[in-house]
Amino acid sequence: MKEIKKVVKNITKIRTDLKALTQQRLDLLTKPRGSLGKLEELAKQIVAITGQQKPALKNKVIFTLAADHGVVEEGVSAFPQEVTGQMVYNFLRGGAGINVLARHVGARVIVVDMGVKEKLKVKSKKLKIKKIGPGTKNFLKERAMTRRQAEQAIEAGIELLKDELRKGVDIVGTGDMGIGNTTASSAIVAAITRRPPETVTGRGTGINEKSLRNKIRVIKAALKIHKPEAKDAVDVLSKVGGFEIGGLAGIILAAASKKIPVVIDGFISGAAALIAYQLQPKVKDYMIAAHCSVEQGHKIVLDYIGLDPLLDFNLRLGEGTGAALAMNTIEASMKILTEMASFQGAGVSDKD
Amino acid sequence: MKEIKKVVKNITKIRTDLKALTQQRLDLLTKPRGSLGKLEELAKQIVAITGQQKPALKNKVIFTLAADHGVVEEGVSAFPQEVTGQMVYNFLRGGAGINVLARHVGARVIVVDMGVKEKLKVKSKKLKIKKIGPGTKNFLKERAMTRRQAEQAIEAGIELLKDELRKGVDIVGTGDMGIGNTTASSAIVAAITRRPPETVTGRGTGINEKSLRNKIRVIKAALKIHKPEAKDAVDVLSKVGGFEIGGLAGIILAAASKKIPVVIDGFISGAAALIAYQLQPKVKDYMIAAHCSVEQGHKIVLDYIGLDPLLDFNLRLGEGTGAALAMNTIEASMKILTEMASFQGAGVSDKD
Repeated sequence: MKEIKKVVKNITKIRTDLKALTQQRLDLLTKPRGSLGKLEELAKQIVAITGQQKPALKNKVIFTLAADHGVVEEGVSAFPQEVTGQMVYNFLRGGAGINVLARHVGARVIVVDMGVKEKLKVKSKKLKIKKIGPGTKNFLKERAMTRRQAEQAIEAGIELLKDELRKGVDIVGTGDMGIGNTTASSAIVAAITRRPPETVTGRGTGINEKSLRNKIRVIKAALKIHKPEAKDAVDVLSKVGGFEIGGLAGIILAAASKKIPVVIDGFISGAAALIAYQLQPKVKDYMIAAHCSVEQGHKIVLDYIGLDPLLDFNLRLGEGTGAALAMNTIEASMKILTEMASFQGAGVSDKD
Repeated sequence: MKEIKKVVKNITKIRTDLKALTQQRLDLLTKPRGSLGKLEELAKQIVAITGQQKPALKNKVIFTLAADHGVVEEGVSAFPQEVTGQMVYNFLRGGAGINVLARHVGARVIVVDMGVKEKLKVKSKKLKIKKIGPGTKNFLKERAMTRRQAEQAIEAGIELLKDELRKGVDIVGTGDMGIGNTTASSAIVAAITRRPPETVTGRGTGINEKSLRNKIRVIKAALKIHKPEAKDAVDVLSKVGGFEIGGLAGIILAAASKKIPVVIDGFISGAAALIAYQLQPKVKDYMIAAHCSVEQGHKIVLDYIGLDPLLDFNLRLGEGTGAALAMNTIEASMKILTEMASFQGAGVSDKD
């Protein structure tokens, strides 16, 4: 917990004072004032986060964290548990959605085993191992993990971000893989926002009506048994969370402490963002919500933190896919700020 | 008109039958069914438009057409008329918003003088000259252009697209530059959709309340004087349109006739799309609406044609900037279809 507290303490307010200055710079460029809408907002946010006048978003890094969930025993997912490990192999071979989209936007993907149930047979250095355990416990029967494990998961995320700094990290995207993790995320969101489970629980990878009712029943029962403390995010994470969710919360906090913008992907990343936010509300200003997921709890998370999603593509894949797409727009916003000609430089008459 | 009629006749229905087949292919990929939302819809549309199983969107071309508008005499714009020509120079030097965003997404920009008032001093082959006249006439006093000029503008657009085919065109984006062209566009939209001018007229580059009232008054009066015939798009274009708007309509029609997807930018491009749509409703299925502009008439155009905008970034710059951003997402959708691993190929278990 010491390391977490240190990182949390190191997160400062963003340089809001630079926003007006950046708007002045944007207003010199050859376009009607404010006519690039959200791109201008993004450019100002990136400057305020980094404290740099012309930050280049060259090193784009997406962390795709994988882990298993004991609660799948309760029949909450449409896919069998072994898919988590199988998808890790797919990530390493470059065949998954996140690989395709990360290549498309020029981002590197860091694949991490945060707690896949099986022992993965991978010799490649491309897989980072931060295994907290072989999947969480079934949180309908016992807490998902110990409090110490919850801390370790967050700490592992912090280490992951710090390890990557050597290679350069200008912007971070969050991603997840874990059969059962929408159930854990819905439980976290219900616990922290105090909204009833039925309003924050969706169909995940595509369960039917009956399975959805079962999923809601499981979450309700778990919250009744464990009574997670909304104000104590580590308590919530340990009782109904997941290792990858804790890891992502650590990455988000560590990125903010290093003044690096973080692009939050979908619902699972949103649950991780919620945990990070409960630990340090200042982290909000470092976040950019990539998109609004089909998963109904996601909007509740974004509203709770106060984030406005950039894209609305009806995505519900996770892995960091939405974050990858959003990064492209964010990079575009910085190029507008740094590459466009000014009225004076281009000899263009300004507004009367 | 003969050439226009030929192109209009050559526009066939898209291969809707390929959509179900493409969905089947998407459903074999390692992701929950439908979980990439709009990306999957886009991939299906591109396959149906091109008739190809694996279309590559390598050659991305944005046409940025510039022309002047006589109606600026009436004080409808915040910027002076000479900005149109000045911005053409800016486009050719690569300093404008569209240049930055086109470079970002790997698109080439074709800059065209469709009717800039001044004689541009450019030796560069980068500027294409399709000058119909030195700006339109003030349509509050007389029709904007003759019927023959309206036809010539559309024909010029058809030629522009055909000229580019030699270099390769896999996807087209529309863009515009022309001080006063939101006034012409609002008049076109009011004439065709029969909505009152005040509901389709916005602040363009940023006029104040008083100028907005004047702009609406000018449009109302012009429509009363000229009585453009909604069903005759060439009549509407000639009475209250613009040369760049006609050119864009021609590009849209020609692209559709060649089975090339067209990304419609903002409000001015929307007015051009409306003209193309009136000439041939089948063109709709070849269009992808890039975004929803701040300019209030844009949504009315999209609803009228039946298009759902991809992005919502509060843009109102034009030039093709929104089209450039959207192209990146459309290209991503094709890479999903062609580069992702299948469940079988990757050894990933499918849904139970």
